Amino acid sequence: MIEGMRHFLPAPRSVEALPGVFPLTPGFGVAGDLAEPVRRALAALGPVIGDGPVSVRRHGAPESSTLTVRADDIEILAGDAAGAFYAAQTLRQLLPHDAFRAVSPLSAYDVPCVRVADAPALSWRGAHLDVSRHFLPKHDVLRMIDLLAMHKLNRLHLHLADDQGWRVESRAYPRLHEIGSHRAQTITSRKGEPESYDATPHGGFYTLDDLREIAAYARQRAVTVVPEIDVPGHASAILAAYPEFGADPSRRHRVLERWGISPAILAPLPKTIDFLATVFDEVLGALGETPFFHIGGDECVLDAWAASTEITAFQRAQHLATPGDLHAWFLRRLADLLAERGSRAVVWDEAFVSGMLRDDTVVMPWRGTNVARRAIAAGHDVVLTPVFPLYFDYAEAASADEPAALGESITVGDVAAFDVAAERVLGAQFQLWSEYIPDARTLDYKAWPRGCAMAEIAWTGRPAAPDFLGRLEHHLGRLDAAGVNYRPLDGPRPWQRSRPHTPGGLDVAAAMRHLDELTLSADSTRPSM
Amino acid sequence: MIEGMRHFLPAPRSVEALPGVFPLTPGFGVAGDLAEPVRRALAALGPVIGDGPVSVRRHGAPESSTLTVRADDIEILAGDAAGAFYAAQTLRQLLPHDAFRAVSPLSAYDVPCVRVADAPALSWRGAHLDVSRHFLPKHDVLRMIDLLAMHKLNRLHLHLADDQGWRVESRAYPRLHEIGSHRAQTITSRKGEPESYDATPHGGFYTLDDLREIAAYARQRAVTVVPEIDVPGHASAILAAYPEFGADPSRRHRVLERWGISPAILAPLPKTIDFLATVFDEVLGALGETPFFHIGGDECVLDAWAASTEITAFQRAQHLATPGDLHAWFLRRLADLLAERGSRAVVWDEAFVSGMLRDDTVVMPWRGTNVARRAIAAGHDVVLTPVFPLYFDYAEAASADEPAALGESITVGDVAAFDVAAERVLGAQFQLWSEYIPDARTLDYKAWPRGCAMAEIAWTGRPAAPDFLGRLEHHLGRLDAAGVNYRPLDGPRPWQRSRPHTPGGLDVAAAMRHLDELTLSADSTRPSM
Repeated sequence: MIEGMRHFLPAPRSVEALPGVFPLTPGFGVAGDLAEPVRRALAALGPVIGDGPVSVRRHGAPESSTLTVRADDIEILAGDAAGAFYAAQTLRQLLPHDAFRAVSPLSAYDVPCVRVADAPALSWRGAHLDVSRHFLPKHDVLRMIDLLAMHKLNRLHLHLADDQGWRVESRAYPRLHEIGSHRAQTITSRKGEPESYDATPHGGFYTLDDLREIAAYARQRAVTVVPEIDVPGHASAILAAYPEFGADPSRRHRVLERWGISPAILAPLPKTIDFLATVFDEVLGALGETPFFHIGGDECVLDAWAASTEITAFQRAQHLATPGDLHAWFLRRLADLLAERGSRAVVWDEAFVSGMLRDDTVVMPWRGTNVARRAIAAGHDVVLTPVFPLYFDYAEAASADEPAALGESITVGDVAAFDVAAERVLGAQFQLWSEYIPDARTLDYKAWPRGCAMAEIAWTGRPAAPDFLGRLEHHLGRLDAAGVNYRPLDGPRPWQRSRPHTPGGLDVAAAMRHLDELTLSADSTRPSM
Repeated sequence: MIEGMRHFLPAPRSVEALPGVFPLTPGFGVAGDLAEPVRRALAALGPVIGDGPVSVRRHGAPESSTLTVRADDIEILAGDAAGAFYAAQTLRQLLPHDAFRAVSPLSAYDVPCVRVADAPALSWRGAHLDVSRHFLPKHDVLRMIDLLAMHKLNRLHLHLADDQGWRVESRAYPRLHEIGSHRAQTITSRKGEPESYDATPHGGFYTLDDLREIAAYARQRAVTVVPEIDVPGHASAILAAYPEFGADPSRRHRVLERWGISPAILAPLPKTIDFLATVFDEVLGALGETPFFHIGGDECVLDAWAASTEITAFQRAQHLATPGDLHAWFLRRLADLLAERGSRAVVWDEAFVSGMLRDDTVVMPWRGTNVARRAIAAGHDVVLTPVFPLYFDYAEAASADEPAALGESITVGDVAAFDVAAERVLGAQFQLWSEYIPDARTLDYKAWPRGCAMAEIAWTGRPAAPDFLGRLEHHLGRLDAAGVNYRPLDGPRPWQRSRPHTPGGLDVAAAMRHLDELTLSADSTRPSM
């Protein structure tokens, strides 16, 4: 009967239909000390000026809200700015799809009367963007923030440094962005094919002012930016700029032009820690309040440490038995540095396996269930990031029509069925590694609608209910209005199809079994996928 | 002494320094019936709520304004919404570069007191986007509108149909967007190389609702969208969908996968005119008020008309001597149709050479000076669009570092030195044909900063003054803040460089000489460049 009411996404805690409709017209006012986020969320509807008939009052827990649409007025009770912003998103979902355009053509909206009481199950509802392997221009990052906010997702994990590119200005170490930010070409061949490259330079970086802007823009939309400087491995771009911080300072490096794990690794020595502290300070200075800072710790090849007399001597001086212990020590030092600066460290699960983590360090178990369970048991806050079903760079189907991907398949249904075990975890997050995501059009295709399913399970804290698919089908009309190049549920549009290739990349189910076995033992810092 | 004052771009009519500064703080109000465009232009500075200390009153000619910053208040007198919007852009240019970010980090601005009286010399200050050869997602079109508006450019000419793609939904003729909107692959080889293709599908289209949104978004920023459905040539995408409208209905067509002129041409018969009228009505219905509608008319190969008994018979029945006359008759019929719908037709110069134009038809002479002069002499409103120096798809330098382009070179200096002969023309417009513009990053690179020089000459109506370069250098900081991937004045950044190739495409100076000779004669509907 009231069309919009059956189509909230993510599903709110409770929805109670009330009699009547409220006639909302552009120029409507919003009153109250939390009015600003509501005005911002509804800006496309037309000028929002002055006070009332929408009123916003502070009440309840952070991120929670109660939206009451009555025939005479609209009332929002919200725990904080995020809650008010989300209530406005809920209100927008009561309107026609055109409310999701940059300019809505509608001159009046009959909003069905309703009371929606809402709060998220998980406090970390995230998306990871790998802007290292392919750079994503600032305006595309801002647009991704808009799409996250539309789905009540609240963390943007920006993977700023990897072998294939360093993506942020450093005034103290300018060669990082001058040298580390670009590569001469990019591999085009797939595994098993003769190696070929595109002969086209690729690169780009965010200035510190850009980072400040991204963080501020995100904050206005209840999204927290989590920067990642991935160390001590994945260090080719850093070492191309400053080889003196490498395990073997005499070795010259280049920004990697192909995918996969490289042996390039930083030296875990005090001078490297000083260098990173300086760079971290620059990033923190730009971002402003940064509750979480990701330091990576994944996929480290420690051979170069064992081969270095200086590093081995340093390891012994610290009374550390193995290079693995030194890996743990190094990351612990960085986490301590961050704690002094008011940020909690976040690490990939290898760093948890290495040990010595601070109690407050957040663990991202990407290698599946076993390691997640172990990190939770050890008392860590855990953000679930398992390859299956949260690596959205994997293809949605094992089909030659799908664009290039490392492996397959992870479907919308796989995501919707994922049990985040809400009472035990801090949150969950999808990953978009960008080997095969060269631009924003491809990013859209990989992120949505799987991101909608992610929003559903992270907000509700449980696998999606049977009505999810119907709500999602309706919601796709909103994505159309917002201009999102999503993947249709029945497969790619003609121009979203891949160049001809034989599907059969990594089988994600088999890979997860392999990873789960690996992480049963304690000393598995380097899986080979 | 007052830093910002020396750096307006485009240059205003008059600038008078006044004593003191005005302290502008976020939350400042804007009063008056033209307040909305001022609020919109300054939205990034923070919430703009309530009335005063900025006041806007209506006074003077369309697009004109006087901005007065005093120590106590800021007053804008504006002829219309466009004038108010431009005065706010001028005000923004008095602030630090950060005022050009999506969120400005500044909490207070000391605005130098000043009086700026301003009005444009040309009423058509345009940009042409070819979204046919490569589709540009809606959000990138909206961002381009932001950049045009920032430069006080006021026309966005959207080239929606060509051999390589049809880019707008048709509910009456759905195969246009279903079939015509995508191609299987795109040519990658350059002239003289063995033919090669990328084996990757390409496509996309705007829904009618998208077009409505684009037009509304543009209108809010004083930009008028000029749609182009290019007929009767460049028709491969139309004919791939509806071969029955072709000169030879038995011939099957595909959306073209390579560049250059194709012989695919519509039949100039009543059924085709009815078909186009229906499609024009759909586009007009979506765009709303559409003062100008471009119908192409360029680069027609008329051989298929001469070969058709039906078309030849129709030509004779209309008492037309040649296929060239029929070309003229066909475009005249379409222009008459548009006039009935309140739109003035716009054509490329071939249609002027063919003759029979309505007096109110606007001519775009792309083949240079001779044909422009002839069209002006014939009493037509003319928008200057010469290949040199306004085809911004041409490279800025004959260098192997420059990204792929059809030819070279057109520099910022060439654009700045162009004399638009303001008292005789309606306007001027730069063109971005998209054979080698596959995405928004490349679009930025080709459009800016040549677009800044275009803004300067179109606004002032004369070649740029010697101080232009200094103002431009300052202005590039604004483009940095806005996240524009422009071409630095001293050449591309490492990641903006081309794949290795031998420069030496079309020499634009020689090509212009050739075109100018061609258009000296009256029957040159098809130059071969």
